[in-house]
Amino acid sequence: MSTPTFATAFAPATLSNLGPGFDCLGLAVTVGGDRVTVRRAAAPGVRVLSVSDPRIPLDPERNTAALAAASVLRRTGQNIGLELSVEKGLPLSAGLGGSAASAVAGAVAANAVLGATLSRREIVLAALDAEAVVSGRHPDNVAPAVWGGAVLVLSLDPLRLVTVRVAEKLRFVVATPDYAVETQQARAALPEAVRREDAVAQAAGLGALVLALERGDTKTLAAALEDRIALPYRAPLYPGFVEARDAALEAGAIGATISGGGPTVVALVSVDSDAGTRVADALRAAYTNAGYAASVTVARVDARGAHVL
Amino acid sequence: MSTPTFATAFAPATLSNLGPGFDCLGLAVTVGGDRVTVRRAAAPGVRVLSVSDPRIPLDPERNTAALAAASVLRRTGQNIGLELSVEKGLPLSAGLGGSAASAVAGAVAANAVLGATLSRREIVLAALDAEAVVSGRHPDNVAPAVWGGAVLVLSLDPLRLVTVRVAEKLRFVVATPDYAVETQQARAALPEAVRREDAVAQAAGLGALVLALERGDTKTLAAALEDRIALPYRAPLYPGFVEARDAALEAGAIGATISGGGPTVVALVSVDSDAGTRVADALRAAYTNAGYAASVTVARVDARGAHVL
Repeated sequence: MSTPTFATAFAPATLSNLGPGFDCLGLAVTVGGDRVTVRRAAAPGVRVLSVSDPRIPLDPERNTAALAAASVLRRTGQNIGLELSVEKGLPLSAGLGGSAASAVAGAVAANAVLGATLSRREIVLAALDAEAVVSGRHPDNVAPAVWGGAVLVLSLDPLRLVTVRVAEKLRFVVATPDYAVETQQARAALPEAVRREDAVAQAAGLGALVLALERGDTKTLAAALEDRIALPYRAPLYPGFVEARDAALEAGAIGATISGGGPTVVALVSVDSDAGTRVADALRAAYTNAGYAASVTVARVDARGAHVL
Repeated sequence: MSTPTFATAFAPATLSNLGPGFDCLGLAVTVGGDRVTVRRAAAPGVRVLSVSDPRIPLDPERNTAALAAASVLRRTGQNIGLELSVEKGLPLSAGLGGSAASAVAGAVAANAVLGATLSRREIVLAALDAEAVVSGRHPDNVAPAVWGGAVLVLSLDPLRLVTVRVAEKLRFVVATPDYAVETQQARAALPEAVRREDAVAQAAGLGALVLALERGDTKTLAAALEDRIALPYRAPLYPGFVEARDAALEAGAIGATISGGGPTVVALVSVDSDAGTRVADALRAAYTNAGYAASVTVARVDARGAHVL
């Protein structure tokens, strides 16, 4: 198979910071994603020809898709140029892993036009190089965007990832109200130290959460979604969240929490309970009452992850 | 079936504080256990007739088997007396859940002579009443001693337990050097606060540990046994531990850590690798070099848990 002169790659939205999975557990979901087209060019260097969202810089030193493509270029050792077009499907500063999706799609498309020599692990590392510049070197969005499904990040250096199966019957009702929360702002709200009991409860909660996700054990899921490290400090950043969560639970959700740096809320439901639509309606209504329009999707796990289109 | 006038129950040794499972993950193992015989008596109250280890008090207000039997008696609402004989199979202050085993065996035997009306959950709560008096209300030894296998404690009030399967191929090389560490002493060494990064790493570690135990994923197990909350502060309490752990790894162990409040060391091995005997020898030799005799067992998971004999 000859190497193509251009390729378009897709990378999905990812939920992260799932309850006690703060900074370590991410999950690719069918809530859309970003598309990046990369074309080979004779003149060396990486250039961004277009981005569908004018708020995103064309400067290749500040654009995650371009930074990731540049890292792929370095890793392959080739001395050609790459020209990118970025089509944002995900909202900015929403907590859906938008910058990770652009980085991953940029890396996957660049890898395709450079001969597809990099492994998925190297794609993660290339996308992390981009994230490091823009929003911090946290792989909990990048890893599931590459692999699909749910991924637990055991360590970053060296990169150790553990896949987590998600029971067939689970659905994720994803609601994004129309206000933005900057990742930096969400990180600034975090305390440096955690009480020992909270650290123990967070660990026990994550252990229970991953087992419950695999087993589809809704009773344990309901009890295992509490985050004691981040959300208690960040909640004031998310107007409407508490009301939305309460409405989701009332409508039959297993539990609900903030995704990423927010403000996206994710409510877990079981297809057994047929609560998906009711929970979606409840979330939308709660945000309307709070004065925000919200985009709501009843999503599944995206098991495929990033791929060339 | 008529209610017996006496019953003898066995409860197994339990490993706890397994790496990032500090204060929340315990595991019953075939390293012996405690036996308690309970006999109905006409005169109300709980009395201890004998204990095989003279260091353990006969005073029913300070004896965990008697305290647990008294809690069972209260929970059943019967107004009879109980007389106990306690046969310790487990060493004291060794980190093998000895007080939990006595409490659980006392509760199970008492329940048998009172008509076996309590559930396993109530047996856990009765044994916790005893542990609360003697060493603190931590269910991470009591729960696996009752249920068998590995149990994750998601919360204490309300009591929420999640069972964790342990892959068939795993063995636990358990080495107890001949010195004691008091539970209180081990707890006093703990800091009140934990750095946020360490809390995140502990949670990720526990998530990875439970998945790896279920899957028999030895590579992840090897990386997921680090405890960042307790062991770094307690290590000075355990002379010979660092050398023993290094020797176990050298001999082919997947990883090694302290069980409970120590000084017992547990090294994980896979039967695939045939390392059990080599690791046992290495642990024994390391403690001998450090000036301690050590009792070493290549154990399996005790899947059955406490039971009437």
